[in-house]
Amino acid sequence: MWKTGAKMTKNQILGILYKKKGEYVLGEKIASEIDISKTKVSDEIKLLINEGYVIDSSDSGYRLMKIPNLPLPYEVRRNLHTQYMGHEIHYFKEVNSTNDVARELAENGAEEGAIVIAESQRSGKGRRGKKWISPSGGLWMTIILRPNVPPTKAPQLTLVTGVAVAKTLNEEYDLDVGIKWPNDILIGDKKVCGILTEVKADMGTIDYVLVGIGIDLNFDVDIFPPKLREGATSLKMELKREIQGATLVQRFLQNFEVTYNQFKEGKFPDILREWRRLSKTIGSYVEVHKKGRTVRGYAVGINKDGILILELDDGTLRKVISGECIHIKRKD
Amino acid sequence: MWKTGAKMTKNQILGILYKKKGEYVLGEKIASEIDISKTKVSDEIKLLINEGYVIDSSDSGYRLMKIPNLPLPYEVRRNLHTQYMGHEIHYFKEVNSTNDVARELAENGAEEGAIVIAESQRSGKGRRGKKWISPSGGLWMTIILRPNVPPTKAPQLTLVTGVAVAKTLNEEYDLDVGIKWPNDILIGDKKVCGILTEVKADMGTIDYVLVGIGIDLNFDVDIFPPKLREGATSLKMELKREIQGATLVQRFLQNFEVTYNQFKEGKFPDILREWRRLSKTIGSYVEVHKKGRTVRGYAVGINKDGILILELDDGTLRKVISGECIHIKRKD
Repeated sequence: MWKTGAKMTKNQILGILYKKKGEYVLGEKIASEIDISKTKVSDEIKLLINEGYVIDSSDSGYRLMKIPNLPLPYEVRRNLHTQYMGHEIHYFKEVNSTNDVARELAENGAEEGAIVIAESQRSGKGRRGKKWISPSGGLWMTIILRPNVPPTKAPQLTLVTGVAVAKTLNEEYDLDVGIKWPNDILIGDKKVCGILTEVKADMGTIDYVLVGIGIDLNFDVDIFPPKLREGATSLKMELKREIQGATLVQRFLQNFEVTYNQFKEGKFPDILREWRRLSKTIGSYVEVHKKGRTVRGYAVGINKDGILILELDDGTLRKVISGECIHIKRKD
Repeated sequence: MWKTGAKMTKNQILGILYKKKGEYVLGEKIASEIDISKTKVSDEIKLLINEGYVIDSSDSGYRLMKIPNLPLPYEVRRNLHTQYMGHEIHYFKEVNSTNDVARELAENGAEEGAIVIAESQRSGKGRRGKKWISPSGGLWMTIILRPNVPPTKAPQLTLVTGVAVAKTLNEEYDLDVGIKWPNDILIGDKKVCGILTEVKADMGTIDYVLVGIGIDLNFDVDIFPPKLREGATSLKMELKREIQGATLVQRFLQNFEVTYNQFKEGKFPDILREWRRLSKTIGSYVEVHKKGRTVRGYAVGINKDGILILELDDGTLRKVISGECIHIKRKD
């Protein structure tokens, strides 16, 4: 596990190598600059190489050759312009699920804005207990939040997160990004990101909220089982190029902090407006499945709590609180 | 009344003066170029001066000094990039109402895309028979349309027009423009434009549709009666400068033609999406007044026909087909 902090040795060494990028820096110089032994420098360099950094070592010292395309803590922190979001990063090669790790951290007092990132998840979770396939090359992340709002407002954070993800993808890439109610991010009509929010509340107060985000980044969805494959896509497939994961995390955390601060300031109505603007569900003909039952109708909008309102074929209106939403086709 | 046409003498004279702007052109030269008498040139120049053009005449001929800031036909046509919208312009100093004039023109066979513009209206009409105050300095315009769609779809043209107006104002000016259901254009929470659609249909076929548009341009709403004043604004008041009316008409006609063509191609669902994006009503707490009755609730959305859906305080959903909508305040 990696945990960032300004004083962490690995970060300090990386900082020095970055500054002199392309040039050799003597081990002695690094050691004296951060006041550790030459052996310690050598050990830490090995760890960095193990993480994916390509570092050449010779008589002239160490030289940073290549940065791995992974959302590694140092890479995320390097140009992160946030007040608190993502300042504490817990990074793993593989975990069962980032939400599980985040829960443990939250139970042990992790602060608001701490995040967990894993290169892959053995048992990633989707909504309603579904498995979420999380191979390496994706972005699997959980944010720990401790908002001072009534627990009844916690579900709103799913929509807050959806807005921040969709906004980020819209800003970064020229793609047809939108939100499928309640919280799937689509490119065209294919899912590229899912969000899973979990809340721990006691006695009418939120202890913590875990916002899990999975984005299909640098892999092909051909590796998914056929049933999931057709409705899914990845940024790499859409853009026909590799995505810089660390940059995407930075931009997302910046947008998320702004939107989350709005939420804490009671500006959820403004966020809902943004959600509606980004929605691909509103104005579509949809089916919502829940516990074997299906409701079918034209999505006219969402109410102030994010509940979906359908107009059925017979003209009656119906509220849909939750369920699996499928866009059938447009109907005029 | 002015009517444009490529061959109209006034337009031809203006064309010549424009080309030589700032220079004198001899009356003889104008006369020979468009094959009329010198006296006719002199008469037409007088008409142009009467319209507001400042034209100097001396021994050296005529010189165009200043163009009036009015949506005069020649000014609108000069840089109008449309296929048919606004190619026929009927211009008046004053009329009872542009819709009334347009109706007469439509009854006499005016083609789709013909428009009527007046500098002021003696008895401008708003929705539900209300008076619409139309002093000079505003933009009072009616468009004649002959869409080949069932009459039941004609009301959709109100929303089509609202989208085109709001889009144009958003593109031209850096203002907080949006639509109040069903068809008022607001800047902030003040009305700047109203739309009145009238349909003539026979035997299940649309004969013509009149789309009346009134925009408060270059006057101060202080001239309105106190009751109307508080909810109204003008572009001049918002921007603290004079608006070029002719340019606004051009840009609007261009946007309107695109949106109206979409409508004719059956793409109303896409226009509705745009409408929702521009809506200030959805997500607001509203009151709708109709025939002495009031419905109050949170506006969750509009259905595929543009009918407003409210969630009342007791949680029930209600469809509102028409009425006077007032935004009460935001509620979260």
